[in-house]
Amino acid sequence: MKKLTDIPTLEDIEMAHQAVQPFIHQTPVLTSQSLNAIAGCDVYFKCENLQKVGAFKMRGAACALEALTDAEKQRGIATHSSGNHAQAVALSAKLQGIPAHIVMPQNAPAIKRNAVKGYGANIYTSGNTIQNREAMLHEVVEKTGATFIHPYDNYNVIAGQATASKELHETIKDLEVVIAPIGGGGLMSGTALYTHYARPNVAIVGAEPKLVDDAFRSFHSGKIEQNDRLDTIADGLRTTLGEKTLAIIRKHVDEIITVSEEEIIHAMRLIWERLKVVVEPSGAVPFAALLQQKARFEGKKVGIIFSGGNVDVEELPF
Amino acid sequence: MKKLTDIPTLEDIEMAHQAVQPFIHQTPVLTSQSLNAIAGCDVYFKCENLQKVGAFKMRGAACALEALTDAEKQRGIATHSSGNHAQAVALSAKLQGIPAHIVMPQNAPAIKRNAVKGYGANIYTSGNTIQNREAMLHEVVEKTGATFIHPYDNYNVIAGQATASKELHETIKDLEVVIAPIGGGGLMSGTALYTHYARPNVAIVGAEPKLVDDAFRSFHSGKIEQNDRLDTIADGLRTTLGEKTLAIIRKHVDEIITVSEEEIIHAMRLIWERLKVVVEPSGAVPFAALLQQKARFEGKKVGIIFSGGNVDVEELPF
Repeated sequence: MKKLTDIPTLEDIEMAHQAVQPFIHQTPVLTSQSLNAIAGCDVYFKCENLQKVGAFKMRGAACALEALTDAEKQRGIATHSSGNHAQAVALSAKLQGIPAHIVMPQNAPAIKRNAVKGYGANIYTSGNTIQNREAMLHEVVEKTGATFIHPYDNYNVIAGQATASKELHETIKDLEVVIAPIGGGGLMSGTALYTHYARPNVAIVGAEPKLVDDAFRSFHSGKIEQNDRLDTIADGLRTTLGEKTLAIIRKHVDEIITVSEEEIIHAMRLIWERLKVVVEPSGAVPFAALLQQKARFEGKKVGIIFSGGNVDVEELPF
Repeated sequence: MKKLTDIPTLEDIEMAHQAVQPFIHQTPVLTSQSLNAIAGCDVYFKCENLQKVGAFKMRGAACALEALTDAEKQRGIATHSSGNHAQAVALSAKLQGIPAHIVMPQNAPAIKRNAVKGYGANIYTSGNTIQNREAMLHEVVEKTGATFIHPYDNYNVIAGQATASKELHETIKDLEVVIAPIGGGGLMSGTALYTHYARPNVAIVGAEPKLVDDAFRSFHSGKIEQNDRLDTIADGLRTTLGEKTLAIIRKHVDEIITVSEEEIIHAMRLIWERLKVVVEPSGAVPFAALLQQKARFEGKKVGIIFSGGNVDVEELPF
């Protein structure tokens, strides 16, 4: 896999898919007749919650690491993250034999810290603000010469995330709509690019919590908007867009739907009860968007990408 | 599919698999490196919790109904059940255009009663004891001429349940051990038969809660043993064996492992957290047995069949 310096092409995504094969699960696409009846359309769920480390992040991390030069691999990689990206980078680095330096904030959940440690990564504990995290990352990079892997504003990461929708479209060949959640925009950008190239007639929809509707506002204003509050249950979607993801999303996404906390919890519960998979609140956001706008999707074949399944089963909202 | 009057042969199971195709999902086989690390072996989970109606029962019901004569199909089918079998029979009947008469005890969960109703079945509410249920079933059969579909002591049902392990062995060709849960013994019998025919060197293990260890005792005594108490969390495994399932299990199962309630809950939680699927307590019993006997399965390739995923997410044991 080469290092990408521009928006991934169809060929780049195909190469990315080859490159990440040894490091990922080909996740199943599940369906449920009872959910179809509730939604009023045929829904195909691409289960990235069943991906390694429990999230699609594994695809982008594996792809970014695969593209490093041998010298870079020897010096190692670095990132900061409190969650799924940290685990994905740590596991990818372990599988590819690359030293990993992960800055995690003090308030990162112990379970995620332990997982990262279990993959053999070096953990650096920073303060909780984004400034604290970035300052410590800068220090680590200075000291080690490691390459920083951005969680989403990186074309190799985007090409990696695109492979989820590639598998979805290859499994279900006649989708009419695809819906993905938007946090930093890596999954949404990859989904939009692949769908645009391979299935140009498919409608591309993003979904986001109303409480952190920065992507919705950025989509309309054309600049990276911030969030005043971050208290959505969909903890994976609190991030704002990056320059690269904003440009791709503005160009290729048709629409962004925002949903309430109640709608997210209701959708999450339906997925657990009817589809029988553990999906995190962020992962339920696209299905919540579909249910909110049922009339518009009526009778259609809709693909939905579950971002992940990392949730504390002792702290469920229902 | 013909009506089977003797223990299903390999050919019978292959025919059953053809017959049920239109009515079932080919469920995925999932793996988790973190669960492998915990278990000390390679575990392959056949996810019948992702089957239609959320349980393997769909296979046996579809197979039994497919084998009815046209005249029998016209008169309809009848059964009694408080749970997964009722839903499986009701949905199979709907898909095959057969009238269904389902006796459900007063204490059946409303969610299951509503599901059965949603499939268009006629529901008859009986008292809660097995005698109440059987008496009302007898009445319904007298009145309607419907054919009784036994939930497990029926060779077509057993052949249908066998198709889950057929798919598992066809997906993972070099398993060394297979473990299934034992309730009435339909899934265990089918698993044992197919594995015996197609993979004669694979060890066949049953798993059961200690609190309702009737199958363990029956396996050793040779007669159908009863349970003094029924208060295991694994509600799908409270049933005793039937004559047909006892004979097959005694002949082909190598061993039955019994597990404590704590072991079941621990295994269930690991599956939810690491594999990211919703499995009911009964479905977690085989993995609990594996964890209890880790040393014996060390380094092996072990197939496990999840019975189902029908669980009330508001009433979790953790």
